[in-house]
Amino acid sequence: MAKAIQSDCVIIGAGPVGLFQVFELGLLGISAHLVDSLRQVGGQCSELYPDKPIYDIPAIPVCGAQELIDRLLEQIKPFNAETHLGQEVNELRREGGGFHLGTSKGTVFHTRTVVIAGGLGSFQPRRLRKEGVDQHEGKTVHYKVQNPSLFHGKRIAILGGGDSALDWTLELGKTAAHVTLVHRREEFRAAPASVAQMKALVDAGRMDLVTGLVKEILTDDGGGLGGLRVKNFSDQMVDINAEHLLVFYGLAPKLGPIADWGLGLDKNQIEVNTETYETSTPGIFAVGDINTYPGKKKLILSGFHEAALAAFGVQKHLNPDARQFVQYTTTSPLMHKRLGVGGD
Amino acid sequence: MAKAIQSDCVIIGAGPVGLFQVFELGLLGISAHLVDSLRQVGGQCSELYPDKPIYDIPAIPVCGAQELIDRLLEQIKPFNAETHLGQEVNELRREGGGFHLGTSKGTVFHTRTVVIAGGLGSFQPRRLRKEGVDQHEGKTVHYKVQNPSLFHGKRIAILGGGDSALDWTLELGKTAAHVTLVHRREEFRAAPASVAQMKALVDAGRMDLVTGLVKEILTDDGGGLGGLRVKNFSDQMVDINAEHLLVFYGLAPKLGPIADWGLGLDKNQIEVNTETYETSTPGIFAVGDINTYPGKKKLILSGFHEAALAAFGVQKHLNPDARQFVQYTTTSPLMHKRLGVGGD
Repeated sequence: MAKAIQSDCVIIGAGPVGLFQVFELGLLGISAHLVDSLRQVGGQCSELYPDKPIYDIPAIPVCGAQELIDRLLEQIKPFNAETHLGQEVNELRREGGGFHLGTSKGTVFHTRTVVIAGGLGSFQPRRLRKEGVDQHEGKTVHYKVQNPSLFHGKRIAILGGGDSALDWTLELGKTAAHVTLVHRREEFRAAPASVAQMKALVDAGRMDLVTGLVKEILTDDGGGLGGLRVKNFSDQMVDINAEHLLVFYGLAPKLGPIADWGLGLDKNQIEVNTETYETSTPGIFAVGDINTYPGKKKLILSGFHEAALAAFGVQKHLNPDARQFVQYTTTSPLMHKRLGVGGD
Repeated sequence: MAKAIQSDCVIIGAGPVGLFQVFELGLLGISAHLVDSLRQVGGQCSELYPDKPIYDIPAIPVCGAQELIDRLLEQIKPFNAETHLGQEVNELRREGGGFHLGTSKGTVFHTRTVVIAGGLGSFQPRRLRKEGVDQHEGKTVHYKVQNPSLFHGKRIAILGGGDSALDWTLELGKTAAHVTLVHRREEFRAAPASVAQMKALVDAGRMDLVTGLVKEILTDDGGGLGGLRVKNFSDQMVDINAEHLLVFYGLAPKLGPIADWGLGLDKNQIEVNTETYETSTPGIFAVGDINTYPGKKKLILSGFHEAALAAFGVQKHLNPDARQFVQYTTTSPLMHKRLGVGGD
């Protein structure tokens, strides 16, 4: 087993609120580790809508979502938080005076406090919701490619219209027996160059493109996957013979393992008090879209405020006897020292 | 009596949180009037520390206090809030289904809701705290000049070292019998040109400058003001004969008339719930440094969050049956329309 990383605080989720949590803890002299299931920081802002403008961040009349993340990264730079990306927290339990926290990559922490800034949950591939799919998942229905050689010499169908679908269509097309790309509309979200390359292969008769809606999963005589039936835009049913389905419908957030940690929940949201944003388990806090309390609105701004108060809650948990007071970044020499800026 | 302005919401206080309250109400389609005792918007940020850097506004690594105000003004521009400056709210009482609100300048509102964003209170001149001063205030001890002709041919003493003290020293020196400027230290905060002009008058024997600490107020035989006694830097007592004192010690915030409005208070802070930031009086809300609740920290950021939730509270008060939901500025066409920006 990996040696546990000792920590005062682990922040689960590196979206805007998790990043700002680093800042608020840093001002109080508390260093933190950041863990996120995505391979990059920024959460939804970077993953789902990086180019979209946001208008309701105070004193920033307009700001792209990725720009917001870049600004936050600049702001938290003085605190050098260590990030652990591309790994989901799948274990959290009390241990000693703190918590044992383990991730899907085998990283293990022993931490005195935890702040869950999990947004809408961790990002999971969107499933193909058709009857009978479950029994094939992990065998002949796939949501990611772990071992490309599995598809050598096979007939495969790839579902989706984004970069993952197109990239794997072109890549696996080199070694598969046959590839059919199935997309629900004529426009593709993927890079135009990949789309053009795919269309050239179709024109050359080296693969098929079917535009339409998946109606059902087909089964072969032995109960295994036989292929799928698609209704095209002429309302014709097209049966596609395939030994493997690869589904690339994008990512969607799910609460995931957090649901199993024994925290008080209300409709999949973690209940917190509005004094410290602590959950029903002392030492575990929750901020941002994942929490709930009377009046809760899912605003990034609210998550920022919650992170500020949660930082004081974490401080109190770490050092219950310490006197707590706000020191202003405008005037406090200690704050200036922690921020690494010149005093006045 | 002035005709009352009909309003859905009056915001008392045009500091950063009051300004952002305009924004959050505007997003919900509610227009508001802003009232402030200062002659400019920006509250403490503009009045007390315009050039100081602030480091803890989310996604703004560093920002001058006046710059923060300028950014907020840019952000709330789409909502065209009417401002009523240089007037203190000195009357607030229930009237009909709403509130009668009156200011020191005679502006009268009939408003359905009120948001108090009063910061530390309204700014009042710092008083000269010496025994016996009270009985002379408003007669021979002054904190502002309302009628300069009052000082024609009189012996006056002016206290302070900022622009107000220097400007009035130069101006009233033209018509007064004699002026003595009293300042506690040798450096002046006033504009260097004014200081040079004053020193030239002293050198020419046309006025006096005394550097030292005011020890006591002197009384004449009839019980009226006789002048003041100052201890100079050589530890000598200097008696200054004066018929009027003008004190320009700057402004300091005071809760003021708000204390008399029957709202639940805790140590001069207005108690609110953290669901809607409503006070003990339905229809009156309080946000920013002036309110209190368990966990309250006096952070500008917290005031911004409170303004967001208070806006929903105001909406509910105005229209109790309306369904409430968050519409995101990133995606909502209605939000884009209200903000006056292009949709996607």
